[in-house]
Amino acid sequence: MRRYYYDPPGSPPGMIHAREQALPPRLQIMDYNAQRCVQKFLSDPQDIRGYLDTQSVSWIDVQGLGHAQTLTALGEIFQLHALTLEDIANVPQRPKVEEAPHQLLIVAQMITLLPEQTRSQRRRRSRLHMEQVSFILGRHYLLTVQEEPQFDTFESVRDRIIQGRGVIRDHQADYLAYCLIDTIIDGFFPVLEALSEDIESLELEVLRGPGPATLAQIHQIRRDLLTLRRSIWPQRDMLALLSRDGSPLLGSEVQVYLRDCYDHAAQVIDTIEIYRELTASLMDIYLSAVSNRMNEVMKTLTVISTIFIPLTFVAGIYGMNFNPEASPLNMPELNWYWGYPLAWLVMLAIASGMITFFWRRHWF
Amino acid sequence: MRRYYYDPPGSPPGMIHAREQALPPRLQIMDYNAQRCVQKFLSDPQDIRGYLDTQSVSWIDVQGLGHAQTLTALGEIFQLHALTLEDIANVPQRPKVEEAPHQLLIVAQMITLLPEQTRSQRRRRSRLHMEQVSFILGRHYLLTVQEEPQFDTFESVRDRIIQGRGVIRDHQADYLAYCLIDTIIDGFFPVLEALSEDIESLELEVLRGPGPATLAQIHQIRRDLLTLRRSIWPQRDMLALLSRDGSPLLGSEVQVYLRDCYDHAAQVIDTIEIYRELTASLMDIYLSAVSNRMNEVMKTLTVISTIFIPLTFVAGIYGMNFNPEASPLNMPELNWYWGYPLAWLVMLAIASGMITFFWRRHWF
Amino acid sequence: MRRYYYDPPGSPPGMIHAREQALPPRLQIMDYNAQRCVQKFLSDPQDIRGYLDTQSVSWIDVQGLGHAQTLTALGEIFQLHALTLEDIANVPQRPKVEEAPHQLLIVAQMITLLPEQTRSQRRRRSRLHMEQVSFILGRHYLLTVQEEPQFDTFESVRDRIIQGRGVIRDHQADYLAYCLIDTIIDGFFPVLEALSEDIESLELEVLRGPGPATLAQIHQIRRDLLTLRRSIWPQRDMLALLSRDGSPLLGSEVQVYLRDCYDHAAQVIDTIEIYRELTASLMDIYLSAVSNRMNEVMKTLTVISTIFIPLTFVAGIYGMNFNPEASPLNMPELNWYWGYPLAWLVMLAIASGMITFFWRRHWF
Amino acid sequence: MRRYYYDPPGSPPGMIHAREQALPPRLQIMDYNAQRCVQKFLSDPQDIRGYLDTQSVSWIDVQGLGHAQTLTALGEIFQLHALTLEDIANVPQRPKVEEAPHQLLIVAQMITLLPEQTRSQRRRRSRLHMEQVSFILGRHYLLTVQEEPQFDTFESVRDRIIQGRGVIRDHQADYLAYCLIDTIIDGFFPVLEALSEDIESLELEVLRGPGPATLAQIHQIRRDLLTLRRSIWPQRDMLALLSRDGSPLLGSEVQVYLRDCYDHAAQVIDTIEIYRELTASLMDIYLSAVSNRMNEVMKTLTVISTIFIPLTFVAGIYGMNFNPEASPLNMPELNWYWGYPLAWLVMLAIASGMITFFWRRHWF
Amino acid sequence: MRRYYYDPPGSPPGMIHAREQALPPRLQIMDYNAQRCVQKFLSDPQDIRGYLDTQSVSWIDVQGLGHAQTLTALGEIFQLHALTLEDIANVPQRPKVEEAPHQLLIVAQMITLLPEQTRSQRRRRSRLHMEQVSFILGRHYLLTVQEEPQFDTFESVRDRIIQGRGVIRDHQADYLAYCLIDTIIDGFFPVLEALSEDIESLELEVLRGPGPATLAQIHQIRRDLLTLRRSIWPQRDMLALLSRDGSPLLGSEVQVYLRDCYDHAAQVIDTIEIYRELTASLMDIYLSAVSNRMNEVMKTLTVISTIFIPLTFVAGIYGMNFNPEASPLNMPELNWYWGYPLAWLVMLAIASGMITFFWRRHWF
Repeated sequence: MRRYYYDPPGSPPGMIHAREQALPPRLQIMDYNAQRCVQKFLSDPQDIRGYLDTQSVSWIDVQGLGHAQTLTALGEIFQLHALTLEDIANVPQRPKVEEAPHQLLIVAQMITLLPEQTRSQRRRRSRLHMEQVSFILGRHYLLTVQEEPQFDTFESVRDRIIQGRGVIRDHQADYLAYCLIDTIIDGFFPVLEALSEDIESLELEVLRGPGPATLAQIHQIRRDLLTLRRSIWPQRDMLALLSRDGSPLLGSEVQVYLRDCYDHAAQVIDTIEIYRELTASLMDIYLSAVSNRMNEVMKTLTVISTIFIPLTFVAGIYGMNFNPEASPLNMPELNWYWGYPLAWLVMLAIASGMITFFWRRHWF
Repeated sequence: MRRYYYDPPGSPPGMIHAREQALPPRLQIMDYNAQRCVQKFLSDPQDIRGYLDTQSVSWIDVQGLGHAQTLTALGEIFQLHALTLEDIANVPQRPKVEEAPHQLLIVAQMITLLPEQTRSQRRRRSRLHMEQVSFILGRHYLLTVQEEPQFDTFESVRDRIIQGRGVIRDHQADYLAYCLIDTIIDGFFPVLEALSEDIESLELEVLRGPGPATLAQIHQIRRDLLTLRRSIWPQRDMLALLSRDGSPLLGSEVQVYLRDCYDHAAQVIDTIEIYRELTASLMDIYLSAVSNRMNEVMKTLTVISTIFIPLTFVAGIYGMNFNPEASPLNMPELNWYWGYPLAWLVMLAIASGMITFFWRRHWF
Repeated sequence: MRRYYYDPPGSPPGMIHAREQALPPRLQIMDYNAQRCVQKFLSDPQDIRGYLDTQSVSWIDVQGLGHAQTLTALGEIFQLHALTLEDIANVPQRPKVEEAPHQLLIVAQMITLLPEQTRSQRRRRSRLHMEQVSFILGRHYLLTVQEEPQFDTFESVRDRIIQGRGVIRDHQADYLAYCLIDTIIDGFFPVLEALSEDIESLELEVLRGPGPATLAQIHQIRRDLLTLRRSIWPQRDMLALLSRDGSPLLGSEVQVYLRDCYDHAAQVIDTIEIYRELTASLMDIYLSAVSNRMNEVMKTLTVISTIFIPLTFVAGIYGMNFNPEASPLNMPELNWYWGYPLAWLVMLAIASGMITFFWRRHWF
Repeated sequence: MRRYYYDPPGSPPGMIHAREQALPPRLQIMDYNAQRCVQKFLSDPQDIRGYLDTQSVSWIDVQGLGHAQTLTALGEIFQLHALTLEDIANVPQRPKVEEAPHQLLIVAQMITLLPEQTRSQRRRRSRLHMEQVSFILGRHYLLTVQEEPQFDTFESVRDRIIQGRGVIRDHQADYLAYCLIDTIIDGFFPVLEALSEDIESLELEVLRGPGPATLAQIHQIRRDLLTLRRSIWPQRDMLALLSRDGSPLLGSEVQVYLRDCYDHAAQVIDTIEIYRELTASLMDIYLSAVSNRMNEVMKTLTVISTIFIPLTFVAGIYGMNFNPEASPLNMPELNWYWGYPLAWLVMLAIASGMITFFWRRHWF
Repeated sequence: MRRYYYDPPGSPPGMIHAREQALPPRLQIMDYNAQRCVQKFLSDPQDIRGYLDTQSVSWIDVQGLGHAQTLTALGEIFQLHALTLEDIANVPQRPKVEEAPHQLLIVAQMITLLPEQTRSQRRRRSRLHMEQVSFILGRHYLLTVQEEPQFDTFESVRDRIIQGRGVIRDHQADYLAYCLIDTIIDGFFPVLEALSEDIESLELEVLRGPGPATLAQIHQIRRDLLTLRRSIWPQRDMLALLSRDGSPLLGSEVQVYLRDCYDHAAQVIDTIEIYRELTASLMDIYLSAVSNRMNEVMKTLTVISTIFIPLTFVAGIYGMNFNPEASPLNMPELNWYWGYPLAWLVMLAIASGMITFFWRRHWF
């Protein structure tokens, strides 16, 4: 489970956690209005300044963290508070929304499903990838900062902008921010679906015959659900705040859309809570199934022993060496004509009697 | 368990999820006031327009989803917001109420009990059928959209309108909406009754002698209760909102009726919570009963073994081949006159002693 | 557990659930002021009208439900809303309070302890009897409707009125309502006391030696506590509402008395929660005690087997038929003078060694 | 566990529960101001009247309940509402605060630790003594009513007044009330300390080797924690109310002191909740430890049996009576020169093989 | 677990708990503004007075408690309320914030990780060190009181002041207070990280093969989490209060910083809750793993016994002494040419049959 970032206790606030060999991040700008749309990769953060003054929407997408110069440059260009820059740079932080004059900081967490693993891996490693996405929303611009370039789920939104599909080009930066947040929240559903399939296949496995890896798998699902829960709860609160209280930077129509987004977050939470209960119930069933199966084995084994022990006793009787010649009472059976067959009969009678008794009581 | 609907992450809002080979839905209109009542099946959604302008109440009931043209036509006719249409079309959504100018969107969830299954099926499949019903309430019209035509529980309300029973014909569209929501909420009670019967028969089964399928059945009931809970909680909140805050579209008398409806939802929740606790208690008892029964079996088997093992030892003693002729101390018993009967007596004494001991301690 | 009443889904609101062969209920009127007091049984509901206009307090007590004419007549006489009449007639409903113009509807639930049962019955059947009591409080009258005539706990209040004990005759109808509600809430205490005795005797039973019926009894107590909880929680909310917000029909002094009543309801809830925790703890102890006792049995049995199995092995050794004449190494012991006693000594040494070992480790 | 007091259902409010042979309670009055201080035992309640009119603080402490005349007299002297007198007389009540004109009723619960018991008693009986203390606070007087004379924890406050230690003599009756309540709340800490020691010694006991009484002791601690919780929660609410909302009878400085008192109550609750969790964890560990120990025993016993059973089989082989003379294949071993030693070797090999196998797998 | 401090019940408020042989605490003063900075150790508390009147920020850090004279002197110098002094001196108290005229009292709890212990110690002793830090914030001064001199985590802040790093020298005393509180809250993270590593190594241990100390270790982690939770919850409430409501002594910019601090506290709580759930899940897995392993052992042992018992029976048969000469039916096998090999064949057949049967069912 990913741990929250923290500064060494006692370090001054507003410090940026820079990684030594970090490469400069990928900087991508889209500048669009209803009529035209420009998409460009920038190598120097200072090139951003040219786009910020225009009335068109400028979306600056930064992919990759840890490069101190770039981060400081961004802080200057967008006039960010030291704490805001710290929240963006030192990931992960708890999702939240914070209002600054002329700016809105939104910290969100994006969940992606890692590509399918082999069955044995799945038992030990989580399939969840969690990444912080920070938004700085201004009047005409949106700055988004992602941790890594490889899990980029914003591609579809970029296509919509370039192709002019939907109404995205007719709106301001606030609508763009909504679209991206919506993408992040909707990203929880495929993850939940994968977990749901895992739970269902575990249910079958548990009821039919759990193996030793089942336990580790249930525990892994529990961990994943805890991770999801820790991530979605503050995002729901964040959306409730945005859609209810609004902000001067959010148009009233975008607030309606954010309300829809909030509904989706509530659905995610509902589903997580249900999965948690199902997993707890699964654990009960697993324990019961393992113990039932063990009991069946022990019962069968014990029944076999219990049948043979009296028989062995009977055989032991006629293995005694009492001297038949010393007295007519001493094991006269040994000299009877039907002695040996009779002994077998006695043993068969005992065995079949016990088998019948056990059978009737369903002990097999 | 049915999962919430979700768009692929990154898709634009307001998209309708159309199914390829979907047939046009069944469109049924009832137009009535206190004096007259018309009931008609429409083939073209555009025919609805004629009824909307009149002062009489027009109830348009749409049964079946996935046909894109019809849904778009409805969106146009009733001037629905793109997100509202999405909520109607992409099912299931979380129950909620949303106010638009001149309209009220209500998303409800209808629970129906599937027809009786065989006992073995019941263990594996839920008997619950869940369907979303969306309401668009206007001043003089009510649009209801159901997912499928076959589970139509609104028939009784239609009868009441046609036959003029009750006061339904004397009221506006808001009262009609209440009647239908009331039908949906009351539909939870027969389902709870069926679950209650299942729980009671499981209680007997568990206390008398649980079989291997009991566990799967308890788990199934838990799943069903989770499904019901996920469905009724947001509907209760929705009714609380409607009956407390009202809306310009809801008359004050209908608000009183909705308060009654809210009370019923609260009763449903009370009952679900109790059933959940009972099921948890049942699980405890099941585990304890299984283990008790197993213990009884093992105890009886072990008692049998324990009685025969000392006897076999005694028989083993007199099976030893010490040479009585080598010394008078070597197994003189073998040559005694009463040797063999005495050996039997010893064994009987041991056996009866142990049986008495075990009996007194209730180990049988 | 008694289920809430519900109408078939789709039936119109305000329907009264009439039982076919229901006899007319027992109608009893008390009309009193500080000076005089009249007590009468009425056969015709219309006779009530004469008492309602006077300034004296009129308490109309109806015992028995299901007789449609009487109920309709009462609805007319007291001008009850259709939903109010439904709440009175279709029992049980969730306890609640509802304000109508000039009237206050209070739905309460009365718990009575059924007479003592035999010990074996108690394990299977609840001793609780639950009955709905509805109050319609007007300025000068109080209508109370009970489900059945036989569990009448209001007798003591009637005595107080007739004998003029206490201050009841000096007050209005609101004080009478308080007295009756107080009687209902105080009725929970003897029930809790009975449950407390059950729990305490179960505690002793569980720690000393639980039998097979203990489990069913714990489950029965849990059910009863759930029933009580479902009944008292809404009544506490109801009393909080009445004592805090008041109503034009409740004098300020009666509100003080209702606050006292609220305190009692809070005490009931405190006690129920504690009993629930005790019962859960009891379940843990039961499971542990059963398993401990079983373990003791198995341990003793296994110890006995374990002692005799090595002895049987020794006896088996000297039961082997190696030919002493073929070699001096072949079981020379058989021909020793002290052979047999030595074999016994060996076996006794093994047995006493094992017994000592087991004894020291407290395995007996 | 002590049950709340209740009147028989249907009895009129304001009844005092008098005990038949109750002796008159001990009445003690302290009348002081900064200059002087009088302490006296009174035999007649009416003597109190003389002290009430003065400007000095009069603390009337009543120890002992059940004497009807005294209680009625107190009711008259202090002009108590019937319900207030009932709350004082019929103990225990739920802790609460109630405002009357010119008076404040505070019902508190005092916990005392009973003197040290023997170890075996502690398992079965609670060491907690709970007593209700009621306060009637007026402008210049304070009436305190305790249940019994023997557990008097107010002695130290009395000393402080007589010796003029602290600032108590410089304040009004409200400060005195605070001092006494503070004494009551602080009285929870030694009790918690005793429980903490019990829990810690149980932790050691459970991890080293739990005996049969451990379970009863854990259950007893749970009961005690439930008792404490039931008592402290309403007292914390009471203190929150007093310190936040105040009352005309409480000076603003006393409110600051009560806030401190509230903090202590919150500390008590924190601690109780932690102990509850620790006890639950303890129960888990107990169950696991018992089962681990049992498993060890069974494993050792079964290992012994499992080693000897194959050996007995080998001995059984050479106990067979096949006639070596009938065929050279019939047990020629019996006539070998090294036959018997070889048999021993085989058996030793089997035994040491199994022991090694079991040893390597840590089955001993 | 450390218990809250409490006065003996009945002792007057405002008493300082002095330890007999306590040495005077270490008094350190830093007096700084943007231009200059003085750091000094004081031996006499009265020397503080000289620094308080200046406009520069004076930070007085007291390390060590229990020396009555010093505490009383501090109380006088800073004009502390008796209760405030008590909260500072009698540790630990519950974290809280309290407003006095011209002063703000903040009680915080600092968690430090004790140096690495050996593995076996870690099972029995907590690695957490908890210490109360009290803050008295005035306009131009900050008084901090720590319990002990050896765990001083404020060193890094002192360095920042002396070296003029960060903006600390440009701000007032409120910013200094924030810096120190931030250090305390950030101090929870390394502790959580250590616990997280413990949990992860326990997860591996539990899934691979739990030893007897695992249980004690899980219990120890639970205790530590309870300790952390008890400490961080009131501190989060405290920070919420400070950052939301502010105080005349806190500048608006510091309030922004405290909001950041609050976010960190929320992250700590999130993490603790997740660890608690993981530990509970771990406990389940531990119990299941122990029981699984035990079951495997018992199964293998029982399988071995079960195979040999029928074989021993066969050997027993041919150990019987029926006289073949008395009748041709009496054990003619003994005289057969292939008798002994046949007996072996029978036994091998039985053994291999059973082994196959058990193998197929995965009972090995």
